[in-house]
Order: sequence, then C-alpha cells, then structure tokens
Amino acid sequence: MNKKTIGIIGGMGPLATVDLFRKIVENTKANTDQEHNKILIDNNTNIPDRTEAIVNDGKSPVPQLTKSAVTLWAMGAEILVMPCNTAHYFLSEVQKNVEIPILNMIEITGEHLLKNGIKTVGLLATKGTINSKIYQDVLLKMGINIIEPNKEEQSVITDLIYHGVKAGNYDYDVTKVNEVMASMVERGAETLILGCTELPVAMNMYHIDFKVCDPTLELAREAIKKANGECK
Amino acid sequence: MNKKTIGIIGGMGPLATVDLFRKIVENTKANTDQEHNKILIDNNTNIPDRTEAIVNDGKSPVPQLTKSAVTLWAMGAEILVMPCNTAHYFLSEVQKNVEIPILNMIEITGEHLLKNGIKTVGLLATKGTINSKIYQDVLLKMGINIIEPNKEEQSVITDLIYHGVKAGNYDYDVTKVNEVMASMVERGAETLILGCTELPVAMNMYHIDFKVCDPTLELAREAIKKANGECK
Repeated sequence: MNKKTIGIIGGMGPLATVDLFRKIVENTKANTDQEHNKILIDNNTNIPDRTEAIVNDGKSPVPQLTKSAVTLWAMGAEILVMPCNTAHYFLSEVQKNVEIPILNMIEITGEHLLKNGIKTVGLLATKGTINSKIYQDVLLKMGINIIEPNKEEQSVITDLIYHGVKAGNYDYDVTKVNEVMASMVERGAETLILGCTELPVAMNMYHIDFKVCDPTLELAREAIKKANGECK
Repeated sequence: MNKKTIGIIGGMGPLATVDLFRKIVENTKANTDQEHNKILIDNNTNIPDRTEAIVNDGKSPVPQLTKSAVTLWAMGAEILVMPCNTAHYFLSEVQKNVEIPILNMIEITGEHLLKNGIKTVGLLATKGTINSKIYQDVLLKMGINIIEPNKEEQSVITDLIYHGVKAGNYDYDVTKVNEVMASMVERGAETLILGCTELPVAMNMYHIDFKVCDPTLELAREAIKKANGECK
C-alpha cells in the first residue's frame, strides 16, 4: 500500500511541533530513509495565541490555520495533523476549507483511554482548552470522568506552559507543578492527560514523573497508521 | 528587522531533520511562539541515497533535491538549509534552480573551526562524504589538517549510520565506534567533525562522549542569524 504524505500544521509552539515530528519518525517501523513517510511541516509562528482567542476574545487563529492547512494540501499532504490541543476548538472551521482529513487528537486520545479501561482522568491543559470544553465534550460521552484543576492549580499549569516551555526556560522550578499533579492523583485520577502539546515537552525538560497519557504520542501513532505506515 | 522564513530540505534522514529543526528552535532567543522564525520542512524521503550516487553511480538525488528546494521556495522560504553533509556534493547543481540561498553547512563548519583556532580535525562521515572530498576541499584551503578514518574504521562508522541511527536501533553496540574515535584523537585530532547529520543523533542515542564539532548545530545557529533571528 502506498504511504501517504503527512502534513503538520505547526508552530503552536515550535517545540511541540518538533516533539510530534520526532514521535512520528521514532515510532515508524523503517530501516532506511526511504521507508519513512513523507512529512511536510509548516511551523507557522504567525498563528495567533489560541487561548487568547477563546478566553479573551483575541484575534482569531482561523485564517492562519487555514493558510497552513491549504498550503500543506497544495504541497501534496494527504492527511493533516495539528499538534496543539487548544487549536482543536477551531478544527471544524479549518476542515471546511480542505478536502483532506485533519486527524482529531482529542478523539484519538479518548479512544486510547477507552481501550485502556480508564474511568477517571486528570486534565492538564491551557485555560483555553479547559474553558472550550473540547476534552470534556468528547470524554464524557465516552463515560470517562474528568478531574479539572482548580483556579490556583490552573495558574500553575498556565505558568509552566508560557513561562517554562514556550519561553525555553530550562531552569524553571517545577515544585508547584509536581504538587498539582500529585493532588489530582489523590482526587482519583488514574492517569493525567497532557492536554497541551507543551506538556509532554515539559515532562522531558524538567524530568517530571507521573503516570500520564500523551495525546501527541497517540496522534503520532494514529498518523503513521492512517498514512499506511507501520508503528514500532 | 523582519524575520525570514527558513526552508529545510529534509528526509536525509528523518531523525537528522528532527535534530536540525530542534536545534534551530532551541537556539532561538524567543519568549513566545510568535517570536520564533517561520520554518517550512519538506521531509522528503523520496530522495535517493547520496552515498550510493557518489560511490556506486546510483540514482542521482538532484531531481528530488531540486523538487524540495523549489517547493519550499514556492511556499515562501527565503533561505534554504540541507541537513545532510553528503547532499552538499550536489548543492551547486540544486542552487542553480532557486533564487534563494542554500546555506553551505561545510563552509559554515570550516569557519567555526577557524574561529576556534583548530588546526587538526578528525573527519567522521559517510563514505560518500569522504570520497567526494567536500570537507577536504573546504578545510585544506583554510589551513586545517584532516585525519580520515582508515578502511576498517570507515566500515565501523558506515555501519553505525545505516544500521544504528537510520534503522532506529537503540540497542546498537558502540564499542567499536568509541575505539575509532579514541584512535583519531590519539593520531592528533583536536576535535572530531560529526560530518554526517546522523552522527550528532548517534552521540545522544548512544551517549558517546568525545570533543566534537557538530555541523548541524553550526548550521542551525547560522540559519537563525541569516533569518534575522537572535541566537541564545
């Protein structure tokens, strides 16, 4: 079966885009360069902040998301992926403008949790993702309960995303982050959804160690399969 | 000054492409997504093996390299980079077909060595890169001496590149690789040029520890500067 070309709508943020790209390459069963999938990436750093758009009525990211999607399609992409959870709030609008499928990372994550018999998860994400209810809408329908961070905990996670990872600050202090995660586990979370693509990056950058579900990894594996590749 | 869009002619191999992308992002001084450079990547795994073309008169990679270069240019790239040393043998042919500059990783590496007062280097690379003399031609003009691997040592390095990194084999045994590197240092190499973009990947994958010069890193830093970005 012919392998398909994967297009990545990237730049949200750049490190999360590197992370998805790496996870696709590393999880592909291939012995030579030529056995890997073709991948096209638009690391489009002109896309306005997605949380700002949802929470504070900021500039809409839709035109720039559509620009990337259409450009990648024009270049030959046959499947699109979007390594930004919050951007999924705008997925259906962007999908209207391209005739190739945009894989839905939120639904893929839900299916993964269901398959693993998870009943209760903690949701770590930007305020935009939490407020937009994109995870809640998908998971509750599947019968999975969600523990959300309280206001104080949310500000800890927001700060980690914006002043830790996005700022490329390797010396960021994660004491409070560890406390938030531990508290969610105490409240019954069987696993923690890293519901912002900067968070798997943070786990590595700061050596944070909890049982987590990584939507970027699940998206990478699904993209490989949908592109007729084989996962390791 | 407006930041320029960087285009990456990738896929040679995919992990080396991830490595350059990551090094550009991590070495850019930026506090938000929007402060990073726009980067377009064509992870073109249809490019035929470069060493095969040089050493065994295999299929020319020029049409696929040109296809990637022209596509990236058409999408808005203003500077091109090519994370594959061996592919630099074909750079001037590809450059004829695009009106935007392709940065030369070999020359950038030579200038970096010169600036650091290095007089003698060991060259680790594919047989294609060694045979094509692309490093020798640039470095000897700058007055830098090169220690090349002997035939047996070359086969150790070739095996590491093809059956270690390109095959994604994390359990690869690097005992002989360490011996080759140690031998080059004994013969007078002040530093070892990782003259194949899979080699910096190998250093991380297999925790190899020698004083090295990483052309991928030097290319990343030069690309940031040429794109009007600021290096960390």
